[in-house]
Amino acid sequence: MKNHPKFASFTTGQRQAYGLIIDGGVIDLAARFATRYPTLMDVVVANAFNEVLETSADLKPDFPLSAITFDIPLANPEKLICVGVNFPDRNEEYKDGQAAPTNPSLFIRFPRSFTGHDRPLIRPPESHQLDYEGEITIVIGKAGRRIAEAEALSHIAALTLCNEGTLRDWVRHAKFNVTQGKNFDASGSIGPWLVPFTDESQLADIRLETRVNGEVRQSDRTSRMIFSFRKIINYISTFTTLVPGDVIVCGTPTGAGARFDPPIWLKPGDVVEVEAEGIGLLRNTIADEVL
Amino acid sequence: MKNHPKFASFTTGQRQAYGLIIDGGVIDLAARFATRYPTLMDVVVANAFNEVLETSADLKPDFPLSAITFDIPLANPEKLICVGVNFPDRNEEYKDGQAAPTNPSLFIRFPRSFTGHDRPLIRPPESHQLDYEGEITIVIGKAGRRIAEAEALSHIAALTLCNEGTLRDWVRHAKFNVTQGKNFDASGSIGPWLVPFTDESQLADIRLETRVNGEVRQSDRTSRMIFSFRKIINYISTFTTLVPGDVIVCGTPTGAGARFDPPIWLKPGDVVEVEAEGIGLLRNTIADEVL
Repeated sequence: MKNHPKFASFTTGQRQAYGLIIDGGVIDLAARFATRYPTLMDVVVANAFNEVLETSADLKPDFPLSAITFDIPLANPEKLICVGVNFPDRNEEYKDGQAAPTNPSLFIRFPRSFTGHDRPLIRPPESHQLDYEGEITIVIGKAGRRIAEAEALSHIAALTLCNEGTLRDWVRHAKFNVTQGKNFDASGSIGPWLVPFTDESQLADIRLETRVNGEVRQSDRTSRMIFSFRKIINYISTFTTLVPGDVIVCGTPTGAGARFDPPIWLKPGDVVEVEAEGIGLLRNTIADEVL
Repeated sequence: MKNHPKFASFTTGQRQAYGLIIDGGVIDLAARFATRYPTLMDVVVANAFNEVLETSADLKPDFPLSAITFDIPLANPEKLICVGVNFPDRNEEYKDGQAAPTNPSLFIRFPRSFTGHDRPLIRPPESHQLDYEGEITIVIGKAGRRIAEAEALSHIAALTLCNEGTLRDWVRHAKFNVTQGKNFDASGSIGPWLVPFTDESQLADIRLETRVNGEVRQSDRTSRMIFSFRKIINYISTFTTLVPGDVIVCGTPTGAGARFDPPIWLKPGDVVEVEAEGIGLLRNTIADEVL
């Protein structure tokens, strides 16, 4: 498989920056493109992955991976939209006798509900029902409203991964809407980086897998998604104008901890890995919140 | 009743600005505070209403109201959270035999789902079930997590109004979550302005009324809310850190068009007014989307 470039946002010392992750470390792009593209979001909005890559072609790492802390790739997207139930087996798990949905269920998370790669997911004192959901995540690169399915993939700038960490009891706190169980600060993660999207094969039929302490819990292929990437972009853009930098988290396979009998919740010290072919491996430990 | 100051965001010519609405027109604050507070959001974040007011005390209007187009007061809040069912009669209208909810239902809207005062709400071609919901809206001025109810009001910087316009059939498009029916571009409005919040009496027991073509459709008092402003702030801040500029739309009284038999949807040319004592009057016409 082609080795795709990896653009990460990170903190080094007190400085927030972004760069290219290569063998042996990090090329600091924020330092080189500070005026034109102060953040990775500016690179996405300007559609400047190629320009930045060409400039970086012969550079050596500025520092080792050990010198950075990964941040979520885009700190402040205009929209961060998540798709609910989106793999067939997972829908059956609900066992409520309803047919497969005709439209995707959508909810919204705030960026502060996510942390970066290799940082702890926070279990809050209000709930011990912290659960994982591994998901493929797309970043919009070209604005559009009512985008046709045939054109949809051309609106994707980049791919990343999400552990869409959820507090299960708080998801059911109210009559409708999962907002509160999906938005505890740092209860999920996005990353480790953005991989520019240049070819349909990067999404068409890739494996997505979630492991807890090395044990496979979720494993499926994107070719089996109920709502395809094309359909998701088409449907969301029917009601809202998508703009560059918008993030769409595209739904999880079967196998979340809530579906075991009894349920298996994440606990401090657990290690969750979300991996997808050609995108990367997003790893987080679990920690109790320090109050 | 005390005449509270009114801070509006607006467009004049090609320029986006903000100012103080007074008798006879607008004092252009963006022109005077461009460096320190480029936008009304910067005034909120700096808690600078008083400073700006003192500087403006003896100024005359820079231009008449006719020279401006109102924008939504805060274009880019980190969070824009809406509370569902929040007045007792309205909950009964659901007639589903369920008890009053123990926790507020919460959903999120994107700023682009709102337009400003005196601008058309857009009815999209995908649905003719456009409905109004008049709501009191608070703006957070002081950050906090797990804010106690006793302290909650001290976290409010300002008040405004919202017509939380909704496409009713799209609210029920999916199994859970109302996201899509609540997020059609320019289907709702916020404004006309921010009124600084300085005293509990501004919220404790004020009348909130929604009229369509002059006919009263919703009318209730904030003292009857199921979830008080204190409780809303306390509950939301349990899971997410509230920050200055966050916007919370606090739920609507009974009487939305969906609850008539047959339902009465908004149609092009209708005029919807949302009014609350001491805050203002938010007026919008309805127009079909121009494709």
